Amino acid sequence: MSNRVITFTTDFGSADAYLAAMKGVALGIVPDLTLVDITHEVPPQDIAHGAFVLGSAYQYFPVDTVHVAVVDPGVGTRRKAVLVVSPTGSFVGPDNGVLSYVLKDYMTFDQVQFKSTEFARPVVITVPSDCQVYELTNPEYWHHPVSSTFHGRDIFAPVAAHLASGVQQENVGESIQELVFLNLFTLRRSDDRVEGEVIYIDRFGNLVSNIQKDSLPDREIVIELAGVTISGLSRTFSDADSLLALIGSHGYLEVAGNRGSAARRLGVEVGATLTVRRR
Amino acid sequence: MSNRVITFTTDFGSADAYLAAMKGVALGIVPDLTLVDITHEVPPQDIAHGAFVLGSAYQYFPVDTVHVAVVDPGVGTRRKAVLVVSPTGSFVGPDNGVLSYVLKDYMTFDQVQFKSTEFARPVVITVPSDCQVYELTNPEYWHHPVSSTFHGRDIFAPVAAHLASGVQQENVGESIQELVFLNLFTLRRSDDRVEGEVIYIDRFGNLVSNIQKDSLPDREIVIELAGVTISGLSRTFSDADSLLALIGSHGYLEVAGNRGSAARRLGVEVGATLTVRRR
Amino acid sequence: MSNRVITFTTDFGSADAYLAAMKGVALGIVPDLTLVDITHEVPPQDIAHGAFVLGSAYQYFPVDTVHVAVVDPGVGTRRKAVLVVSPTGSFVGPDNGVLSYVLKDYMTFDQVQFKSTEFARPVVITVPSDCQVYELTNPEYWHHPVSSTFHGRDIFAPVAAHLASGVQQENVGESIQELVFLNLFTLRRSDDRVEGEVIYIDRFGNLVSNIQKDSLPDREIVIELAGVTISGLSRTFSDADSLLALIGSHGYLEVAGNRGSAARRLGVEVGATLTVRRR
Repeated sequence: MSNRVITFTTDFGSADAYLAAMKGVALGIVPDLTLVDITHEVPPQDIAHGAFVLGSAYQYFPVDTVHVAVVDPGVGTRRKAVLVVSPTGSFVGPDNGVLSYVLKDYMTFDQVQFKSTEFARPVVITVPSDCQVYELTNPEYWHHPVSSTFHGRDIFAPVAAHLASGVQQENVGESIQELVFLNLFTLRRSDDRVEGEVIYIDRFGNLVSNIQKDSLPDREIVIELAGVTISGLSRTFSDADSLLALIGSHGYLEVAGNRGSAARRLGVEVGATLTVRRR
Repeated sequence: MSNRVITFTTDFGSADAYLAAMKGVALGIVPDLTLVDITHEVPPQDIAHGAFVLGSAYQYFPVDTVHVAVVDPGVGTRRKAVLVVSPTGSFVGPDNGVLSYVLKDYMTFDQVQFKSTEFARPVVITVPSDCQVYELTNPEYWHHPVSSTFHGRDIFAPVAAHLASGVQQENVGESIQELVFLNLFTLRRSDDRVEGEVIYIDRFGNLVSNIQKDSLPDREIVIELAGVTISGLSRTFSDADSLLALIGSHGYLEVAGNRGSAARRLGVEVGATLTVRRR
Repeated sequence: MSNRVITFTTDFGSADAYLAAMKGVALGIVPDLTLVDITHEVPPQDIAHGAFVLGSAYQYFPVDTVHVAVVDPGVGTRRKAVLVVSPTGSFVGPDNGVLSYVLKDYMTFDQVQFKSTEFARPVVITVPSDCQVYELTNPEYWHHPVSSTFHGRDIFAPVAAHLASGVQQENVGESIQELVFLNLFTLRRSDDRVEGEVIYIDRFGNLVSNIQKDSLPDREIVIELAGVTISGLSRTFSDADSLLALIGSHGYLEVAGNRGSAARRLGVEVGATLTVRRR
């Protein structure tokens, strides 16, 4: 059970003591953990942003990794604290949608379509059949006294460490069948076009959409975004002089600037509509 | 002696090579250390800020952890380099007050009152009776040649690694009885009120004061800060519509904005006066 | 072979999932690696900046460390991916000059003078005699499918992990004899003066030059930069009231402000000329 990995995805930034307190609590339970930061630069309380970053990283880790996600505006309220066990990793965090990208990987295309719900809004779903979910109700695995404002330190980190030390998933709490999920993947599709949204903007200003490769109409495509039209897909960032579209390393259709920020150039933010049509 | 933890608290930021050089030196001495960053985002040379972050994190780590604190404007001058061994951790760093919050945890309320000294100014104290302090005078445990501008790499990190590898504390230098301490905890109290200062502002704009729970007059209180009055204590960040006060996860009275920065809203900086009185 | 160290130097920042994906891939190959971040705050695509930070840190790590450098504007084009094995560490990254400071440590003063080439421009050099270089051509040690935009995750990190797990250097690809190198070290020298450039500006605003101690004319020197003259070398940052010059912890001549940014004060950027002459 040694050398188990725990990752952390939070909106804590790296200036305060919050993250270190979580790591200290975890190391106090299992001294030889390998601790990996996924990111702490999630904009404060931006659940969808944190969900994307965790969802883009977790699949590269060993399957016995425990991932801790703390973007938690509802801490201390009645929102649940949960453990999600999937075939490709275990996840602890608040039940507020921060695990949406993880859950999506175990749902069909149709299961993630919520046509009457606004982009990025929470919906309640049934737990995907490949996953088990537990509400963290057993205080035996918490750090006491439990603060009402910092469950990352007092519930999520210690539960993750106990799981990494071999505690059985059934022991951390009650099995539950429903979870909060964010409406991030609903597409409008017709025979010759698909319309989606920008779901993430990275450090380089690349605009990541919620359109995956297998939702594209055909090879000969045109992408429209913020009044600009891009023809065809590039293979690398060096392929075009200015704006280009490609299937990015996340597996999503992405609009990028060659050696410059596409986001700044187009003045585009998360939620912007993006259309792909046959040329 | 394996899997010992060393933490780092510095004002180095994460852009330069300084931090990595410290870690490389430590790993060269003990290859299987667990290295944890507490923070490197201390504003340059802001000793009191670094002291707060370290003081809010260290108590969550295993007691055999060695904490390295490098906020060191006086590097290369006659300021001492010290090791402080407390019952809850060992600490290496400059003798400039950066360990004030650690020392305070072993001092009484009266011992941290310096009524005639300005807020945040250094004073000299006697080492608390539960701690042992050593001046780092033994070059056997340093990295050579010793730069006059970077004791983090050449003195603090290697001494910490040697301690983690089992070197006895008495071997790193001479025992000393006095230390520099910052005047951060002096309160003005009367029967029905207590007055303190904002000692820290976190990433969320929460204003942390130096007033701890047991210094509060009573349960029915009113907090005054920057011309604003807040009635009573909340339990979570979601309890009020706008500004609220609570005992934060650090254990201090804190003024927070519900889903917004209290610091920006009130235009308040570290050192601002905060008053608590009975309603 | 356990507890081997892998370091990472990138321009990925810490907000996105790129870095975590690299670490996950590496831990999937060798679970008990020690992973150390050198920096991820290299300005996007600033190869010379990344080269400096890596070059200032690597020599403090154990010699069996594998350093991963990913500042890679040419990813997916015909730029090579390489492994450089030196007596003081192994390095994987793109062949674009990001390893210039490492290579320089195995080249003579004359070998790094390119008088007819502009500052910071790439040149092609012969591999230094103490080093072996391999082009990463063996897909057996890659992560598949290989993205055309993210070789950090798909080539560099997995190759580094396989090397750390004991894979022989000859197995990762073909031995090569030429490498890209940046013209960062060319000085103009006469009997009583030496002229160089600012190669790096750190978080504190200290201006690091490409002039090393043994290139200085004599002990009694005057430094000229941005119209300002500084007499003599200081030993610490506290030695002068305002601007001062010293041999910094990197081993280079550095101009610093005592408790303030020299860069902001002088309005100087990387590439600015700096002259040292005998007084």
